[in-house]
Amino acid sequence: MTGYDKGALQNRLGLFNELQRAAREITLPLFFEGPDAVNKAENGYDPVTQADMDAERRLRELISEAFPEDTIKGEEFDDIPGANDWSWTLDPIDGTRGFVAGVPVWSTLVAVSFQDTPLLGLIDLPALNTSFWGTPGKTWREGTHGGVTTLTTRKCAHLNDAVLGCTEPLAMLNAGELTAYNMIRSATRFSRLGLDAFGYGLVADGRMDIIIEAGMKPCDTRALIPVIEGAGGRITNWEGGPATDGGRIVAVGDPDLLPELHIYLSGVIAPSQGQDLLI
Amino acid sequence: MTGYDKGALQNRLGLFNELQRAAREITLPLFFEGPDAVNKAENGYDPVTQADMDAERRLRELISEAFPEDTIKGEEFDDIPGANDWSWTLDPIDGTRGFVAGVPVWSTLVAVSFQDTPLLGLIDLPALNTSFWGTPGKTWREGTHGGVTTLTTRKCAHLNDAVLGCTEPLAMLNAGELTAYNMIRSATRFSRLGLDAFGYGLVADGRMDIIIEAGMKPCDTRALIPVIEGAGGRITNWEGGPATDGGRIVAVGDPDLLPELHIYLSGVIAPSQGQDLLI
Repeated sequence: MTGYDKGALQNRLGLFNELQRAAREITLPLFFEGPDAVNKAENGYDPVTQADMDAERRLRELISEAFPEDTIKGEEFDDIPGANDWSWTLDPIDGTRGFVAGVPVWSTLVAVSFQDTPLLGLIDLPALNTSFWGTPGKTWREGTHGGVTTLTTRKCAHLNDAVLGCTEPLAMLNAGELTAYNMIRSATRFSRLGLDAFGYGLVADGRMDIIIEAGMKPCDTRALIPVIEGAGGRITNWEGGPATDGGRIVAVGDPDLLPELHIYLSGVIAPSQGQDLLI
Repeated sequence: MTGYDKGALQNRLGLFNELQRAAREITLPLFFEGPDAVNKAENGYDPVTQADMDAERRLRELISEAFPEDTIKGEEFDDIPGANDWSWTLDPIDGTRGFVAGVPVWSTLVAVSFQDTPLLGLIDLPALNTSFWGTPGKTWREGTHGGVTTLTTRKCAHLNDAVLGCTEPLAMLNAGELTAYNMIRSATRFSRLGLDAFGYGLVADGRMDIIIEAGMKPCDTRALIPVIEGAGGRITNWEGGPATDGGRIVAVGDPDLLPELHIYLSGVIAPSQGQDLLI
């Protein structure tokens, strides 16, 4: 990545509040509407996809108006090719299963990259009224935790002291991956599941130490990178390469935990290389 | 159970608001204080146990003042034996792991039983500002979902349509139990983990269909029973017996799901009868 213009970055960060507000207006009512909306799914109406699509369409409009030359990528529609080095990656509802089940940890993810390197990330949790903002060198949290607080990951010298997170190990990991995960899990203090992107925010906030997941898409992952790294943590794929393209992801609050985790994780054959045996 | 006096039941329900308020005053600040408090644990100060003990002590005081002849049982202290047929069961912080990790789904559980049958249950989630209230024939939810709403479980004719919950299958279940759980999981629509008592509230609210757990204590379980049953659901142990003493628990929104689940679950040897092989 060559140098980027800091003013141009700041301008894009300046749009985040409006994107947050616009997405919440669409997603929150459908989340609370809940059971009725979900029941309608059996008659061909899918409220989650609807909220996803409506929110992404609105976010694309706002971004295109403000930065017509930027690239926009999202889960629901084709990429909008840009004419400069800036790109946006959107996931209007990360954690759709939680959204459907009434669990308030689903989030809206927005990332801004320069020459394919994520520099800004927003993890917004409307139903918890809390959000995590990642920028180069600084991550903060806004909302119910008492205004705005700058976040720093916590030290965690030993795996035995670590709090581990994973959204759904039994559904996300194949047999080999689950074995590696269980080796790590059995060495940690305890694990906490079902968090989707919120878990990465809690690592940035110094409440958790490790997240291990697989099957992530780029639109699930890009916003997490500035949030984790701006707070002092690290996020890579299981082999230690960049997390920018998703796949199998490991995030830590204390970078010193990473080499040991890579030893466990890097030997596990990826689904595309081997068997995908779901237990 | 012989007949109980409805006025006596109503009087005890009348104390719930004060118990809810008193527990929140103690638990919520410690939850938000978070990382600092948790870090102190390594120096011999354990904020969770402290919050647990302080909250339970306060709840016991309030109950003893109002109903000096009632039995009181809780996690942190010895039973207070009573002089009538009414008993209270308290779990000041259910989901202490979530509490430590900054996940707002921990709850305070209060149950009132008459002759050992749970008749009133409160699942209060202070950090979500939501609560589930179970009484004979009626369950309701209070808080951020828009005031007070009466809850009814949803129909779920087939296991394939069901949303399944479990707090931590890999840590909670032994090898045989995990096999049965995975057979059921692979037949459901999807699973959502990490919810502790909140999952039972979501079953009552018609957002989830099945919860399968093990290793539950009576103080984890008693408050759940009136919440689930007052909304039209059922909760039993894996063999189909009463859930009142905890252990291995299955809860459903649609009672018609229960016979099929008991076929999968009732054959699994309990830890006390066989090997406790944690995978």
